[in-house]
Amino acid sequence: KINGDRLWASLMELAKIGATEKGGVKRLALTDLDKQGRDLVVGWAKDAGMSITIDQIGNVFMRRDGTNNTLPPVMTGSHIDTQPTGGKFDGNYGVLAGLEVVRTLNDLKIKTEAPIEVAFWTNEEGSRFVPVMMGSGVFCGAFSLETAYAAKDVDGKTVGDELERIGYKGPQVPGDHPIGAYFETHIEQGPVLEDADKVIGVVPAVMGLSWYDCVVTGMEAHAGPTPMGLRKDALQVSTRIMQEVVAIANRYPPYGRGTVGMVQVFPNSRNVIPGEVKFSIDLRNVNDELLNTMHEEMLAFIDKTRSESGLKISIERVSYYPPCPFHPECVDAVRSATAKLGYSTMDVVSGAGHDAIYAARLAPAGMIFVPCKDGISHNEIEDAKAEHLEAGCNVLLHAMLERARV
Amino acid sequence: KINGDRLWASLMELAKIGATEKGGVKRLALTDLDKQGRDLVVGWAKDAGMSITIDQIGNVFMRRDGTNNTLPPVMTGSHIDTQPTGGKFDGNYGVLAGLEVVRTLNDLKIKTEAPIEVAFWTNEEGSRFVPVMMGSGVFCGAFSLETAYAAKDVDGKTVGDELERIGYKGPQVPGDHPIGAYFETHIEQGPVLEDADKVIGVVPAVMGLSWYDCVVTGMEAHAGPTPMGLRKDALQVSTRIMQEVVAIANRYPPYGRGTVGMVQVFPNSRNVIPGEVKFSIDLRNVNDELLNTMHEEMLAFIDKTRSESGLKISIERVSYYPPCPFHPECVDAVRSATAKLGYSTMDVVSGAGHDAIYAARLAPAGMIFVPCKDGISHNEIEDAKAEHLEAGCNVLLHAMLERARV
Ligand SMILES: NC(=O)NCCC(=O)O
Ligand SMILES: NC(=O)NCCC(=O)O
Repeated sequence: KINGDRLWASLMELAKIGATEKGGVKRLALTDLDKQGRDLVVGWAKDAGMSITIDQIGNVFMRRDGTNNTLPPVMTGSHIDTQPTGGKFDGNYGVLAGLEVVRTLNDLKIKTEAPIEVAFWTNEEGSRFVPVMMGSGVFCGAFSLETAYAAKDVDGKTVGDELERIGYKGPQVPGDHPIGAYFETHIEQGPVLEDADKVIGVVPAVMGLSWYDCVVTGMEAHAGPTPMGLRKDALQVSTRIMQEVVAIANRYPPYGRGTVGMVQVFPNSRNVIPGEVKFSIDLRNVNDELLNTMHEEMLAFIDKTRSESGLKISIERVSYYPPCPFHPECVDAVRSATAKLGYSTMDVVSGAGHDAIYAARLAPAGMIFVPCKDGISHNEIEDAKAEHLEAGCNVLLHAMLERARV
Repeated sequence: KINGDRLWASLMELAKIGATEKGGVKRLALTDLDKQGRDLVVGWAKDAGMSITIDQIGNVFMRRDGTNNTLPPVMTGSHIDTQPTGGKFDGNYGVLAGLEVVRTLNDLKIKTEAPIEVAFWTNEEGSRFVPVMMGSGVFCGAFSLETAYAAKDVDGKTVGDELERIGYKGPQVPGDHPIGAYFETHIEQGPVLEDADKVIGVVPAVMGLSWYDCVVTGMEAHAGPTPMGLRKDALQVSTRIMQEVVAIANRYPPYGRGTVGMVQVFPNSRNVIPGEVKFSIDLRNVNDELLNTMHEEMLAFIDKTRSESGLKISIERVSYYPPCPFHPECVDAVRSATAKLGYSTMDVVSGAGHDAIYAARLAPAGMIFVPCKDGISHNEIEDAKAEHLEAGCNVLLHAMLERARV
């Protein structure tokens, strides 16, 4: 069994970097704070006797050798970048749970046949740079290193430059790194486990996702003298689409999701009718056919709104990955470790994307969920119980040991 | 008659300060660019032999003495601050038309009995600092100097500090400055004159205005794992109110106006359900009773939305002025000057607020409108014809001379 106190202490230590007033963490990908967080975790890994490899997209692999190093490593991992109003556990838990597994193996002087690796992947959150899950995506070839390097934040800074700046553009070619099996522990980021009062979520699959940028262009004009009938109000037209995004998701329960999270209004002055509105659309479903239906319905609604309003509306898909069912062997490894340890459990489909879905393209993969308070994540008040985090880490230890063999 | 070329040249010269790529002007109140604009106009006034007085809110009065300086001055004026995406004519035309009147009187060596003054008022636009029409508002006692000084921009900078910084916090107590009559020339900022193919708009009244800040507070949560039915999506609830703002205005034609111009979404990340949305509401009507009805309907809708959605919704009125009918004598002076000069004309209610409505609380006041291209204002492509600007300035000259007496 792992050391829950040590795991908790490491989580709290890492959460100090970018800590917010409300108890959350703001440590956006490839910022100075991200660098500080990376340095801290790498330092801990070295203290635990691990060797470090960094690839060209800044993914970091921290390795504990096995007795047979020709075997591909059994890997676990996640990310340490956060949302602008993120919590202490999203991503960070998966990385530090991996580290805790290694520390436990060291304490118990357990040697595994296959090497053990703990990875943290670059820019999982996708809030500073799109696409989301960038590091693992480049690693598995979902998109190219060039695409990733060229991604810009709102200030026009690129991933390539920022990686260089913080010193995490490594030498290894992404993907040039074998994986035997991949596990990822994560807080559920939803309310299902808590509602059902279960400790461990076995994750059969992750929902597919489509992200869009929508731009509505009208004509900015003075809010006073411009009669209502003569307006080309980009915001009013946008609100119809924003409402439809939710309506579409509601038509495909229980796994349809539709969210508008980001809005920019131009020129954003209180007495100017908005001339342009740019906003994001996030559609998800665990069934790819339904996700595609949702996509089609949205495009059709936009066409209809375009011709009804006479305004210019552009829509561009900026990210997409299909639903990802996990490998039966890894799902079973999680299930039987949970049973062995006697934790209460249920299956939970993941609504959030995780680096595991890209790792799953290269190796058998599975995930372990633990509850988080009120199902809230991507929020500074995100919270989780130490005993649940400990339980998830114990399941990880046993699932990894099953694959790595003692 | 005034010199239309000189007027145009001055307009183009002033428009260079803060000129934008798209041909507009961005010269927000109390910025360095505003200071440059102020310095330029004050320099021109001194060249025309005028004396300068600055009051504590930064209003600038440029005076040409009369033959009887115990008479209160006949004043004209407007503002030189602009919207973030403003044009070359809004406000600037009213100030430079006044200057052109003085230059013409100098050329023709005409002495008036009453002094002539040209004013430019601080922060008319209200886009950097609320309340709008701040300088003239403080001048007439609509709100206090302390309130104005304390107003903050989005970066937290105050009017008091910014006035000091640019060197335009003058010694005169606002309002301690008699006015005999006040005229203001302005582009219409709407499509009425152009549609009717008329050159001069005689302005019988200005619509009243109510501005609000509305804040909807939900709960930010992850866009993937949070089921649709468990969300507290602040943006979705906001879109209903945004649509109602327009619906209310549409229920009170022809002078009802409703606009949401400014929106801030928090945390504004594409995979986070918005936890808070702040937006502005702008309601107008030329009839105060109807404006009040619109206000009541909006509050009722917000109450209904609050109880239906269960989300916290706060609404605060941040600006209000009632409709302002202008003084019959000044309206007539404009009407007869227009008739004498033979310009085509019609009455146009002003949808935009102007410094004239506050001046009207202290002295008889009137306004002169000229057409602007496609009725577009508060937009970088705002445009007006030199011949129309010249015509408006000629009407101003004759209306002022009627009141100031030669
Ligand atoms: N787990 C997580 O927050 N992933 C970010 C991508 C997503 O929005 O699902
Ligand atoms: N004329 C003008 O743009 N005034 C600003 C106040 C308003 O929004 O009416």
